[in-house]
This record gives sequence, structure tokens and C-alpha cells, in this order.
Amino acid sequence: MAEAKVLSGAGLRGQVAGQTALSTVGQEGAGLTYRGYDVRELAAQARFEEVAYLLLYGELPTQAELDAYTGKLKNLRDLPQALKEVLERIPADAHPMDVMRTGCSFLGNLEPEKDFTQQRDKTDRLLAAFPAIMCYWYRFSHDGVRIHCVSDETSIGGHFLHLLHNKKPSDLHVKVMNVSLILYAEHEFNASTFTARVCASTLSDLYSCITAAIGSLRGPLHGGANEAAMEMIERFSSAQEAIQGTLGMLERKDKIMGFGHAIYKDSDPRNEVIKGWSKKLADEVGDTVLFAVSEAIDNTMWEQKKLFPNADFYHASAYHFMGIPTPLFTPIFVCSRLTGWAAHVFEQRANNRIIRPSAEYIGVEQRKFVPIERR
Amino acid sequence: MAEAKVLSGAGLRGQVAGQTALSTVGQEGAGLTYRGYDVRELAAQARFEEVAYLLLYGELPTQAELDAYTGKLKNLRDLPQALKEVLERIPADAHPMDVMRTGCSFLGNLEPEKDFTQQRDKTDRLLAAFPAIMCYWYRFSHDGVRIHCVSDETSIGGHFLHLLHNKKPSDLHVKVMNVSLILYAEHEFNASTFTARVCASTLSDLYSCITAAIGSLRGPLHGGANEAAMEMIERFSSAQEAIQGTLGMLERKDKIMGFGHAIYKDSDPRNEVIKGWSKKLADEVGDTVLFAVSEAIDNTMWEQKKLFPNADFYHASAYHFMGIPTPLFTPIFVCSRLTGWAAHVFEQRANNRIIRPSAEYIGVEQRKFVPIERR
Repeated sequence: MAEAKVLSGAGLRGQVAGQTALSTVGQEGAGLTYRGYDVRELAAQARFEEVAYLLLYGELPTQAELDAYTGKLKNLRDLPQALKEVLERIPADAHPMDVMRTGCSFLGNLEPEKDFTQQRDKTDRLLAAFPAIMCYWYRFSHDGVRIHCVSDETSIGGHFLHLLHNKKPSDLHVKVMNVSLILYAEHEFNASTFTARVCASTLSDLYSCITAAIGSLRGPLHGGANEAAMEMIERFSSAQEAIQGTLGMLERKDKIMGFGHAIYKDSDPRNEVIKGWSKKLADEVGDTVLFAVSEAIDNTMWEQKKLFPNADFYHASAYHFMGIPTPLFTPIFVCSRLTGWAAHVFEQRANNRIIRPSAEYIGVEQRKFVPIERR
Repeated sequence: MAEAKVLSGAGLRGQVAGQTALSTVGQEGAGLTYRGYDVRELAAQARFEEVAYLLLYGELPTQAELDAYTGKLKNLRDLPQALKEVLERIPADAHPMDVMRTGCSFLGNLEPEKDFTQQRDKTDRLLAAFPAIMCYWYRFSHDGVRIHCVSDETSIGGHFLHLLHNKKPSDLHVKVMNVSLILYAEHEFNASTFTARVCASTLSDLYSCITAAIGSLRGPLHGGANEAAMEMIERFSSAQEAIQGTLGMLERKDKIMGFGHAIYKDSDPRNEVIKGWSKKLADEVGDTVLFAVSEAIDNTMWEQKKLFPNADFYHASAYHFMGIPTPLFTPIFVCSRLTGWAAHVFEQRANNRIIRPSAEYIGVEQRKFVPIERR
């Protein structure tokens, strides 16, 4: 073996591991772009289905293309009976990300990707089916009901809320879900996306890549931050209490979730967007505590540490105001990021070399085997 | 964002992505070592359970430790009823690697890894349960029988053969399974192991890491090579035909599976071992075709291209002689490599930084959003 090159940073930080045409993260002038579009413009003006189409098919759709695409997705929402029966066998105290991982993997047995010409169809199927996988299990295990997995909602976000609450969601809630799904859709070579690309580089099937990515997003250093933020915010019953509590956590050097970012240095462009919508939801429900507590923590973190909230922090209160149980926060992230993961899989397949780095060996020197009777 | 460093090789080839004390691949004097031991010595003198213990617990076990360990594994073989019911819902024409991926993921719902102190126990559980996951589904979907998932076989290899064929395997077959499981157990930062480490770097749970790795091993550029080799070998009915066929494939520049290696340059140290056992099995069954065909392809590849067989090539005939259906070849790889994957997960967790590389952006320049009515 040729001498391998030792990289300076652990975790491949700052090292280019491949090419992408899907997004830029942390570039001057626009914190986050999807195929050239500023995520803030997309969140303000597009529907999530348009963004999914942009990522998966390459360009924003025309009205006719979008109508056809939303119609297609709407027809793909129901789950096969066998998958429902699998979800019914998952206990109520399971980790919802384990449910998503299993649901995705199981569907791969029933409706396999036979070759790569099917990659977009299989992605669209998952995009349409993920809300039902999450809600069917959640409602069955928690409420004992077998829900219908279809609804007449046009949008994926609205469909999810409809299945979860068994009623038509308000226009405001549909709008916020739409914004949220856009903000989380794509983020370059983050750990779950990179997992999907490593898996794709063996030319494995789409379900394997997405299942693998779900497993990575499950990790508390990755997708679990909005849940952790919610748990922290809920501990305080007033802004004053939150300020004191935050100062105390800082003093004890506790990990405070939802602040700072591996790539962004000054602010997360997604934060200003979701913060605005969280405020609107707070006003709608007449909240006087949760948003104020969130802002108090936010301000204290900035004053004390110059740390800014990332996309996850105000997502916590926004989801909470819409009646979404905290354990489902990261599964919603799955429903959104699926689009970025899949687009990266397509990209990896189109110009592939198997991702197989080397390791620096730090183990014991070569040694002779010692038979068991002489150990 | 700081300027990212562009790597010279695609697929991170030759780039050090982390440290390991588990194995060396392609070093002078010993092609493959596990924690310092030459894999050829381990294959000749150890049992697979000793090697699993070596990888997972750090040193070769004493006799007392090995007895306790094999006893522990034996007690962990049965599957929960809910998992059996899930496996019964997977169709007979499913890809067996999708079954393994789903079985592993589903078990994570029933018996989650609550914290990292459980990592070795959860690994041992998977090690004990994987043969039953594979065989329960295979026998139910193909033969319509619900097998017992326990046996009185001491070894994992023997247990697998017992479940598959519903009878006590011969000593020779148990021995060959043992050797095979040792040879496949660990191989540094290959794509599936690297997948497991990327997943582990988010501090996700063990089931997520192993499920992700199974998805990567499924890829035809990775774990599927021994199945592809078998399909090629079976096409020929004599050595003479194999020589002509191989020459023809070379002329047509067909991909010939089971030869050459990304890291090894002159030979794969695992090949000489499994080739010897394949010969013994051929003699035992009185084979006059399959081994001769394999050797003819091997010799032709060397004469024409100076390409050597890798670990996968003679595994094909060896497994075939033991009556193992070709689609189960890669799932056996899972039963073995699980030990390496898990040991890498432990190592990643013990000195972790989230694996989050950067990408080179090759997409369109930043552009203004165009509302749908003006597209």
C-alpha cells in the first residue's frame, strides 16, 4: 500500500470529500443555497414540493409540472398492509427514528429499487409515504387507532398534520410546516448525507442509502438537537427564570442545544425564518411563556457567549405550538431531508468511485498467535 | 467558511480518515492482521468466536473466557416472536440483504441500546441472532416452515448450517464456516465499516450503525462479489470451457468478479486459505467440475492480466459445496463482518468527532427566485 496521507483535522473537517451541485453552505452573501437559490427566498415564496422537485429533478417546476408532481405524490401516500402490520409490532416506547429507519428498510423488501432508472420514483414514494409511516405507528401505539393513511391535503406538511391530529390543519400551520420542510431539505455533506453517499458509492439500492442516513440523523450530535432544545425550553416558566437558568448552565458548562454550528460562523440563515414563524404561532395561540423563554435563552447566549441560534432552536417552539409531540421532531426532519439525501445519492451514482479511505494504524505490533491452552 | 482543502483522489482513496487499532491491510510481511495477529494464523488455529472476542473485547480469550463467551452467545440465539412475524411478511423474492438490514433495524425497536455501556451486549446479541434472522426468513419464505431458531451447535458457523439444513453439519463443514467467518471478520476502513463509523460519529445507537453498514455491504461493488463470482463459475461445465469463456470475457472487457483488490497489490492473503478449504470440500463431494472451472479461471486471469483472486473468489465454490444457496453468501458476510463493524463503532465512540467533510461546489451560480407564474 502506498503511504497514506494524514489529514490534519479529525472528522474530515474542512476536507473536500467530493463534488456537489446541490447546495452551498456558509458562502459569502448567502448562508445557504439550493441549486443556486437562497433558502430564505425559497422559504418565503416556494412550496416544499417545488423545492423537492428542484433538488430531485434539477430545476424549479412550471405550474403544470408542479400540479403533476403533487398529484403523483398524493397518489403514493397509502402504506401496504404488510408494512402497517410491521409498524403495529413496534412498541410505544420505541425511538421514533428507529421506527422511520425500520419502516424505510421494510418497504425496500416490498417495493425494491430494481435498477437506478427507478431512483426518482422510489424517492417520490418514500416522500409520500413517510408521514404515514410515522403517524400510523404513533397513533396505533399511543392511541390504539389504525388511522387512514391518506388525506385530501395537497401539501406534505398539511398531510402530516392531518394524519397526526385527525383533522384539517389551519392554513397557518400548513404554511409553517411548508417553511420548516424547506429549511431542513438540504445541507451539503452533513453526516447523514455523507452516510448516504458512502452507502451509494457501493452502488447499493436507494432504500439502503436512506435507511443508513436515517440512522445517522438519529444521533444526538446531528438530528436530535431540536428535541433537546424543546426539553430545555420547557424547563422554564418565565423569561426571568430562563435567563437565570441559562447563566447557570453556562457556569456549569452544560451543553446547550440549538446554538452555534459546525460551518456557519456568525448566524444560521434558517434561524431568522423559523423564528419569525414561531412568533406568529405564539401570537396565534396566545402564548406568553414559551416564545418569551426561547428569546430570553437566545439573548443570554448572545450576550454571554456570542453564540447564535441555529435552525433547530426556534423549530422547537414552532413545532410545539402546532401540537406536535417532541419525539416526532426528528422524524419530520427525515421527511424533509430525504429530498437532499436522495439528490446526493443520484449525484454520487452519476459520477461514482467507491468511498474507501485509509486509517492510521495505532494498534499493537504484529505478534505470534498463542494457542488457547498457553494463554 | 475557511477554504476547504481539495483532495487528490476521488473516493477518499489513500486518505487517512481516522485511526484504528483493529487491523492492518496490505502492510509488508502480513497482508492482513487483526489486533496484530496474522489472519492466516487465526484462520488456521483459532475459532471464530475467539476472533470475535479478540476484536470486540481487545485480546484473545483464555479457555474460561471463551467457554463463558460461547455459552453467552448460545443463549442469545432465539428471536422474539414479533421479529419472526416481521420476517414472515417479507416476500420470498426479496434481496436477502434487505432482510438482514430490516431484521437488524427491527430488533433495535424491541431491544434498544439504551446507552453505550450496553454496546458489547447488544453486539453479542446480534452476533447470536443473525443466523436465525437469515434462516428463519429463508426457510419460511422458500419452504413454508417455521424453524426453531436454536440449536445445540457450539459454533456460530455450525449453528447457521444447522438452521439452514435442519440437520447436524459435518465437522468439515463446521470447520470451513469457522475459517470463512474469520477471514471476513475485519478489513479496516472499507466502505461498510466507514459507513458504520460515520453513523457512529453522530453518537447514534449501535443498531443504526450496523443497519447502515449492512446497506453498504449490499452494494455490488462491495459485498456482492462472491455471489457474482458464483454466477460466473456456474456458467461453465469444464475447465476448457472456462478458459475459453474467460478469454472471451477479457476480450469483451466484461467485469470479472472476484479478482484484484483496491488495497492489495500482489495477492489477497485470505485467498490461499479459502482456496485450500474449497479444494478439500471439492474432494469430499467428489466434484470434478466446479473447482476445476474455478482454477481454470484463476490461472487464465493470472496468465492474461496478472490479476489474483481475492477473498471472494474461492468462497463461491466453498459455500456452494456446503449446499448454501447463492443469495445467502453476502448475509454470511454480515454475520462475520458484524464483529469488525461493531469494534469500529466502539473505537469511534471512544475518541469521537462527528465526521462531516466538505464538498466542492460545481453547481450553478447564485440566482434569484422566479415565481411559478413566470417560469
